[in-house]
Amino acid sequence: MKQRVDLITIGVPDVAAARQFYVEGLGWQPVLEVPGQVVFLQVGHGLLLSLFGALDLARDVDPEAGTPVGIGDVTLAHNVASDEEVRTTLDAAARAGAVVLKPAQRAEWGGFHGYFADPAGLRWEVAHNPGWSVGPDGTVRMGPVDEG
Amino acid sequence: MKQRVDLITIGVPDVAAARQFYVEGLGWQPVLEVPGQVVFLQVGHGLLLSLFGALDLARDVDPEAGTPVGIGDVTLAHNVASDEEVRTTLDAAARAGAVVLKPAQRAEWGGFHGYFADPAGLRWEVAHNPGWSVGPDGTVRMGPVDEG
Repeated sequence: MKQRVDLITIGVPDVAAARQFYVEGLGWQPVLEVPGQVVFLQVGHGLLLSLFGALDLARDVDPEAGTPVGIGDVTLAHNVASDEEVRTTLDAAARAGAVVLKPAQRAEWGGFHGYFADPAGLRWEVAHNPGWSVGPDGTVRMGPVDEG
Repeated sequence: MKQRVDLITIGVPDVAAARQFYVEGLGWQPVLEVPGQVVFLQVGHGLLLSLFGALDLARDVDPEAGTPVGIGDVTLAHNVASDEEVRTTLDAAARAGAVVLKPAQRAEWGGFHGYFADPAGLRWEVAHNPGWSVGPDGTVRMGPVDEG
């Protein structure tokens, strides 16, 4: 697993309120948003911050979850280049002492992903997202996932 | 406040155990570490991940804190270029709807900083750290703060 964070996902109780603060209040520009569901903001070279409903985030880890993630409870994401690399990365994390929370599988958004927790409980998503690209200047573009 | 995250700080119950996972287990290289207290890992262009004792993190926000921050409870940090800009950035965040948790002040590590919480409760540190520099390739160097 390479030494890299691509996406910081924050579970928020109210996506519209979070948007109000960052977009209207601070004047930050979204890269992509789905009203009421998720707002993606570029916050570094190849790095996005995602404001995502806290219950939706809990359910992205465990579809049966009934309890939202805690306020400020974060998920870091690490992108890889293939579905197979999602599997090998989760395996590598497990060998290093992580607990796999969600085995490698097709994601609802069309890509392929899984989750692990580090020994302190910090959640990482490992994802293959063919719609994610980073330009030479670090600008992230997220397009639809072509499942070709 | 610019649209940028410079540092992701994770409060962990056991810094040595966290180090064991990331450094020994995953093979990641620390930029800087203080054994048992904090480990800094480069995880992107100009971006560090900090594994910091959960009680130390709580006390960095509030020196009177007796309770560690929660597992996986994150602090994002935003670096600015001067002590004055710490003040103006905290003011801008407050005007946008944030709650200032720690007003602009000299930090224990020698720089100048403050904390705010966004409307969902997510903590941000705003810091002027003269010892932090980013090379053209995105490599972060952290040196001692020269209080000149």
